Amino acid sequence: MLSWIDGQPARDLPLADRGWRYGDGLFETVRVEQARLLCWTYHQRRLRLGCARLGLPAPPAELADWIGRAIDRTGPGMLRLAMTAGESGAGYRRPRPATPHWILQWQPIPPRPAGGEGIVLYPCRTRLPRDPALAGLKHANRLPQVLARAEWQDQAEEGLMCDTDGFLAAGTASNLFWRRGSCLYTPPLAQCGVWGTRRQLLLDEVGALGLTVCQQRARPSALADAEEVFICNARIGIRPVRRLGHRRWPVGPQSRRLQAWLVEAEQRTAWAA
Amino acid sequence: MLSWIDGQPARDLPLADRGWRYGDGLFETVRVEQARLLCWTYHQRRLRLGCARLGLPAPPAELADWIGRAIDRTGPGMLRLAMTAGESGAGYRRPRPATPHWILQWQPIPPRPAGGEGIVLYPCRTRLPRDPALAGLKHANRLPQVLARAEWQDQAEEGLMCDTDGFLAAGTASNLFWRRGSCLYTPPLAQCGVWGTRRQLLLDEVGALGLTVCQQRARPSALADAEEVFICNARIGIRPVRRLGHRRWPVGPQSRRLQAWLVEAEQRTAWAA
Repeated sequence: MLSWIDGQPARDLPLADRGWRYGDGLFETVRVEQARLLCWTYHQRRLRLGCARLGLPAPPAELADWIGRAIDRTGPGMLRLAMTAGESGAGYRRPRPATPHWILQWQPIPPRPAGGEGIVLYPCRTRLPRDPALAGLKHANRLPQVLARAEWQDQAEEGLMCDTDGFLAAGTASNLFWRRGSCLYTPPLAQCGVWGTRRQLLLDEVGALGLTVCQQRARPSALADAEEVFICNARIGIRPVRRLGHRRWPVGPQSRRLQAWLVEAEQRTAWAA
Repeated sequence: MLSWIDGQPARDLPLADRGWRYGDGLFETVRVEQARLLCWTYHQRRLRLGCARLGLPAPPAELADWIGRAIDRTGPGMLRLAMTAGESGAGYRRPRPATPHWILQWQPIPPRPAGGEGIVLYPCRTRLPRDPALAGLKHANRLPQVLARAEWQDQAEEGLMCDTDGFLAAGTASNLFWRRGSCLYTPPLAQCGVWGTRRQLLLDEVGALGLTVCQQRARPSALADAEEVFICNARIGIRPVRRLGHRRWPVGPQSRRLQAWLVEAEQRTAWAA
């Protein structure tokens, strides 16, 4: 893994940083292909929103340069773009103004295979707390997801989490969709979860594909009569779900169609460094 | 500030660490006086509980040595004893076994003044999410407290937080008590907040002082007919509250009495390095 802090190659973070002390920061996990940052429009929007909601400065003008130098001449990979609230003395109080650190970490991963088998979802017991102040943001307070991911080893590719009221919320690192007829359903994320870039792209664009999206508060039992189920995120794109506990679904036609659509949409919303 | 990682003087944390990426860790803030760690019995218990609940290894046998060397010949100060889940590749999944990093940070602060004026509490709008899986632990996911602390500057010494249902929870970095007659009231923390060491000491011992403690789910209006109000934590001990918004309280006799009791109780539960 290659790493940079504020544009300089780095391996370490100062111990005075608030990132490790309080999770006082944000991150984006961006898929990079041929020096293009897929879905950058959406990553950038969420990042700016996160900075504003956490009361931290917006990304600096130099960030584009730093990213460009980091991914120049790299192959396919994932770029983790993170910010912390920077350094401070003891206590929750931030300095005013805060001086964030911007951290880039790049690692190669293979391009996504076209199609791909359906995956298995593990039904996690760990639940997502409801917190409208932080809901949607990709902030660095991720213990619920870490605890959920520790519930299984290799028998599933992803885990499904409910919120603390028992309603469907999200995968540990992905968003959930299910389809009945021409309607895609996905949990509303006003109270918990991350507003995934691919989820938002679907919300914005599937109308043009003859589908509607309904953000529905639903129990896991709502998946019983789904015709197909899929998850999405920056790394895997759209992946059909073939099993959750005893429930099974076919790899459906809309999942395949949306996979193809996503390849084009990700490029259309990309940024070339 | 002096810092050590795993017993070695250090200024930085590896960027591969999960602490800054996910807040995957725990901490204790321990008051040190004359090379004694006040209330260590309680800090150690909470730390061990946190390790177990987060699925991380218990503190290593060497930790006592590392602490001893860190605070040897220091004056009065605060020792931040933190652990992170250690280093890993990308993603929420921890390595098995996880190899935590243990981080010590020491800084001098004056001893607590005896008595002290009553303080002002700021009524924070930011609320604590309800999450029984993490409630009580002093984990490193502290964005709600950070956002609450950013709501005021110098017009108050501490802020009061409710949970997302609007019930009294805690100070941003302290626990809350109020008294009517011979009963001390404090919010139950089964859903959010930190099980403070001084709070637990009070719960364990005030019976012997002729007081009872009731853990009561209460709205802020319950403070209206309190005869006295105080907060407590490792740094400030017990501090009377004289004002919250338009409400005022006297510095009460039980606050003064408990301050004196705490000095003894902290020493009795201390550990001499």
